[in-house]
Amino acid sequence: MNAIIITIGDELLIGQTIDTNSAWMGQHLNEMGVWVKERIAVSDDANQIIATLNTTIPRADLILLTGGLGPTKDDLTKNVLCEYFGGNLVRNDQVFKHVQEFFTRRGLPMLERNAEQAFVPDNCEVLFNEQGTAPGMLWKIDGKIIASLPGVPFEMKHLMQRFILPLISDLADTSVLHQTIITAGIGESFLAEKIIDWENKLPANCKLAYLPSLGMVKLRLTVRGKKSESLQEVLSTQMEALKTLVAAHLFADSDELPEITLGKLLLQTNSKICLAESCTGGYIASKLVSIAGSSAYFSGGIVCYSYEAKQSLLQVNKSILDNEGAVSESCVKAMCEGVLQKFDAKYAIAVSGIAGPDGGTIDKPVGTVWIAVGTKESIVAKKFIFTKDRWKNIELTYINALMLLKPFIN
Amino acid sequence: MNAIIITIGDELLIGQTIDTNSAWMGQHLNEMGVWVKERIAVSDDANQIIATLNTTIPRADLILLTGGLGPTKDDLTKNVLCEYFGGNLVRNDQVFKHVQEFFTRRGLPMLERNAEQAFVPDNCEVLFNEQGTAPGMLWKIDGKIIASLPGVPFEMKHLMQRFILPLISDLADTSVLHQTIITAGIGESFLAEKIIDWENKLPANCKLAYLPSLGMVKLRLTVRGKKSESLQEVLSTQMEALKTLVAAHLFADSDELPEITLGKLLLQTNSKICLAESCTGGYIASKLVSIAGSSAYFSGGIVCYSYEAKQSLLQVNKSILDNEGAVSESCVKAMCEGVLQKFDAKYAIAVSGIAGPDGGTIDKPVGTVWIAVGTKESIVAKKFIFTKDRWKNIELTYINALMLLKPFIN
Repeated sequence: MNAIIITIGDELLIGQTIDTNSAWMGQHLNEMGVWVKERIAVSDDANQIIATLNTTIPRADLILLTGGLGPTKDDLTKNVLCEYFGGNLVRNDQVFKHVQEFFTRRGLPMLERNAEQAFVPDNCEVLFNEQGTAPGMLWKIDGKIIASLPGVPFEMKHLMQRFILPLISDLADTSVLHQTIITAGIGESFLAEKIIDWENKLPANCKLAYLPSLGMVKLRLTVRGKKSESLQEVLSTQMEALKTLVAAHLFADSDELPEITLGKLLLQTNSKICLAESCTGGYIASKLVSIAGSSAYFSGGIVCYSYEAKQSLLQVNKSILDNEGAVSESCVKAMCEGVLQKFDAKYAIAVSGIAGPDGGTIDKPVGTVWIAVGTKESIVAKKFIFTKDRWKNIELTYINALMLLKPFIN
Repeated sequence: MNAIIITIGDELLIGQTIDTNSAWMGQHLNEMGVWVKERIAVSDDANQIIATLNTTIPRADLILLTGGLGPTKDDLTKNVLCEYFGGNLVRNDQVFKHVQEFFTRRGLPMLERNAEQAFVPDNCEVLFNEQGTAPGMLWKIDGKIIASLPGVPFEMKHLMQRFILPLISDLADTSVLHQTIITAGIGESFLAEKIIDWENKLPANCKLAYLPSLGMVKLRLTVRGKKSESLQEVLSTQMEALKTLVAAHLFADSDELPEITLGKLLLQTNSKICLAESCTGGYIASKLVSIAGSSAYFSGGIVCYSYEAKQSLLQVNKSILDNEGAVSESCVKAMCEGVLQKFDAKYAIAVSGIAGPDGGTIDKPVGTVWIAVGTKESIVAKKFIFTKDRWKNIELTYINALMLLKPFIN
């Protein structure tokens, strides 16, 4: 099965928006064994959309369009597709009710142009969009599938996961299984050296992918075969061997966000965490809070972005700040102790560093970060020298702080 | 003049790499009045590259290809193009010397496959690449320009700036101007209603685009015309009219992140801000801190994710929490007052809400958020009812908090 992705919108062509949608779609389709042979970005222009449909439909089994489904004048996709496939727009009651509720909930009047979002071609399957007001549309024509999805990333992902990916899974005669584990604190090439013998002996239907990202390397093992084969067994056996080889660097044995892994551990041990953040300025807290239910294990935190705040809110001794500075082992340890006094929590993380781009010295260059983790009984601190880039330093501090705390939790 | 961008490489199709190159190219071409009518990403496959050249060259004045020029097996672009235009590969001495030096400097041996990078088609203009080993290539055929550039972003940019953009500037007789403004707190369709009369009367060479994202709608106005015309005047006049119409909802009059707009205002007024965050859990703080230099105007914050923390760290009265709850006007006002006592800052934002998915009641459904902003002298609070989605509620709280504070700063 192969696919072509068509993204619609002038903002993509003039470079105002970077197209992350088709990367996400490409990745997920590929994981299911669908080969994306081409991606095309076109303008909000009826003739161009039609010309692109004419040249792509004969060449692929699956055509996925995103964008151009909003309520404004420049959104043409629905009308163009409706006419192209010879349908008429009719009101869909489920969508109409949903759009109405959307506005009622916000206490806003529903305008004519919003109501129009509930009009859909009468010859397509409507992909009900819980996350927004524009439904997706799906046509099955001469063995081809053509689907149109909203361009807003979370709405597109929602409809892909709910409708398109399950449909592909039903159609395929082969199946593909994946498992991803997360390693941290070791570079891609060093990891490769550790597992080279195992990797070379992998059966022909298994494939390992290295997915490096900042501070982490994910390893994705893929097994492909007929639906009838016992692929799960092959995957499990190989995974166990891999996990043993990388045990010292294993952060999680599934592809989940680090803050989810940490949250699960805290829930399992019925314990809570609090934070004292300087250079990350609330970033670690916001990561923890992004997970639903985190109030069960996150007590709170203090963002102490100045010397004064470190002293008054966390009782860091003035002499530490004067003699060793805010980016020092003594300071993060004191911050860690201080924040454990303020919150009802067993564990704490404290971070202080020079995120950059300014503020570095010869002794403490930009990227220098001290991280302390622990409990009232025991605190450890570690120094890192990351990069010259502010954003990367904040992200790396967050990942490494979680990695450092993890063995403490029991 | 119009253009088509062709990006070559499997990594783009399987979503391993997000295509930032064509966004950059689109932006720069557009600024020079070249309309990018299409972007196509294709595989490292000779037949596909040829098929794409066949269908695109007749449809555009300028065809820009990136990628597939490296020294490895999967890099086919040079050979395909050379054959397509009927040329032969010959050694280019300047490039050969450059590649040789490149390896000498790094103390690495030059492999056969590296030396091959100096072989170029004999019928093209060689675009000498100071930043890497793969030169670009340019053909002018029947009034069309076809150029092939490396896929490595900084090499592509280097050749665009040195060769392609100057060439276009020489050829073009038109130019294009853009300005984007940011509105917040009003939906796309309501905004459209407000400006419909103005939009309908726009001159033919002006085009308005709506770029909605969570909590914000950007409006981009584009003016095209001859180089000789005074386009800036047209743009300014229309922009002034637009800004007046949307004044109540205008957050910024350029396309920048909200935390940058706020930071600039605080810097201009030489004032500082502190935060008391409950439902956003440090998210607002982390946004402010993501901007380099924010320590000049951000004092810090308290993430009070429990009743206890609100009482002990922000002195919120127990009776408020008992009688009105943490998601109430009295509570956010008290949090705002409390945090202004803790930090050396003129302004404060305090937020408390039910981010979800759980914790809602009939009176206070998921998505209910109270935001207070102000100074020691004056605090206002406003209630919002956002969505059922945790992430959206956090993001919407952040945008609306900044929007609510903005008029205070002076």
